[in-house]
Amino acid sequence: MIAPTETRAVLRWQDGTARQARREVAEETAIALTYGGSTQAVMMATPCDLEDFAVGFSLTEGIVTSAADIEQIAVEETELGLDIQIELASPRNAAFVSRRRAMAGPVGCGLCGIESLAEAMRPLPALAPGRSRLKADVIANALRRLPKAQVLNRATRAVHGAAFATPAGFFVVREDVGRHNALDKLVGALARAGIDPATGFIMVTSRLSVEMVQKAAIAGAPVLVAVSAPTALAIRSAEAAGMTLIAVAREDGFEVVTHPDRIDFTRLETTAEEGHIDVA
Amino acid sequence: MIAPTETRAVLRWQDGTARQARREVAEETAIALTYGGSTQAVMMATPCDLEDFAVGFSLTEGIVTSAADIEQIAVEETELGLDIQIELASPRNAAFVSRRRAMAGPVGCGLCGIESLAEAMRPLPALAPGRSRLKADVIANALRRLPKAQVLNRATRAVHGAAFATPAGFFVVREDVGRHNALDKLVGALARAGIDPATGFIMVTSRLSVEMVQKAAIAGAPVLVAVSAPTALAIRSAEAAGMTLIAVAREDGFEVVTHPDRIDFTRLETTAEEGHIDVA
Repeated sequence: MIAPTETRAVLRWQDGTARQARREVAEETAIALTYGGSTQAVMMATPCDLEDFAVGFSLTEGIVTSAADIEQIAVEETELGLDIQIELASPRNAAFVSRRRAMAGPVGCGLCGIESLAEAMRPLPALAPGRSRLKADVIANALRRLPKAQVLNRATRAVHGAAFATPAGFFVVREDVGRHNALDKLVGALARAGIDPATGFIMVTSRLSVEMVQKAAIAGAPVLVAVSAPTALAIRSAEAAGMTLIAVAREDGFEVVTHPDRIDFTRLETTAEEGHIDVA
Repeated sequence: MIAPTETRAVLRWQDGTARQARREVAEETAIALTYGGSTQAVMMATPCDLEDFAVGFSLTEGIVTSAADIEQIAVEETELGLDIQIELASPRNAAFVSRRRAMAGPVGCGLCGIESLAEAMRPLPALAPGRSRLKADVIANALRRLPKAQVLNRATRAVHGAAFATPAGFFVVREDVGRHNALDKLVGALARAGIDPATGFIMVTSRLSVEMVQKAAIAGAPVLVAVSAPTALAIRSAEAAGMTLIAVAREDGFEVVTHPDRIDFTRLETTAEEGHIDVA
């Protein structure tokens, strides 16, 4: 096991004077995701929750459609990093190998530009409309819980979090130095526990780039909440997939950027008119 | 030309009330980097400074060792994104194609885990010790200039910046939704202008992950300053490459994490002892 944080000596320069100090920093490990002996990707990631990571990455990258498609996960520690060796159930494995064969051009990995852009901009599955609307203060309350739950980030101020919450109060968080990895770990944790992402909403502590929308949509998450701002492409992708995107999210306010029909603001407007602004 | 920002309607929920509002968001475009007709990578990036991006990525990924190795850059706009088509000068091209041939395994892109980890953790060139020490207040002053120079980020609060500054007051910045891309664009801009990164220091507005250290080291930048925290692996890599890493950097203070010998704190300590804390 590699420890996820480490304490380092630093020279702190403040108000004109340099002094010896110590800082707790986040570990970052090269982690290979290897399917049937052949590596699909190497990520720089936080070395914890590795099974969640393997399952989540396999799902959000479309390598499997269910956690049950994965037969075995083994983590090998090497001098250069970790190798997560994943064995797929046979039908899924055959489909994956044939897809990779088709992708391999004569001089290596490179497709041509148009093919590569098409691969990156793959169409997303359409998300089903919500069964019931989500109260704005439920999201605000979950945002209030998030910083306390980010254990690694509280120690290092350098780790992203991805969390899932439901109106009933269920809450789970995963952390990683990479924001995509944190989301993959969360998606994997939900899949392994048999929890449908459509029963609640996902929160991320990062900006909303298109890859975050892609991963959440493939995982079947209809509501994605981000602490920071979205890109224009993330907004267009969420619009097309029918995803509710919420950005610049704080416990006292946020912006609904797409599909606000899933959110229930009513009680809050009423409360505000009555002069009771605190929604906690 | 794709505009780098766009204004969108949002529903802003604040203190219990939802209201119509507008937000300026950063564009994000799928950009393929294609060498001799075969794509090396697709990045989600800000669609500006594309020649800088092409040159910088080619340098920091070790595809070329000098901007002169690139014969031609053409940008093709497609429905799905931009394809930057790069033609290398012939000797370089031959070396690159043979490297790609060697990388291609029988079922596609995947090396085995160990080979992939070795590729990701490639050893870095050792940086030469500095000719003269860099005054801490020179760094502080450059950090003060940085936010004003980030034009896209001031509009959107969602774009990273990478800047280069020298003790003589030279200053240049590049911006991108991706922090790696911002650094690549900066490295490309310097290379195209014939500026040696060793004559000053690089500042980035993001966290310091190992990839940022790798790219800066390959570009020959001996001093890397980041607004946010470093990872443990970034610190080890900088230590090994002989790079001075400065983190948690503000105009009134920062932490020197590795190789403090390149920094001159002396005047500042003296000033502080005399009771003059302001170094501006």
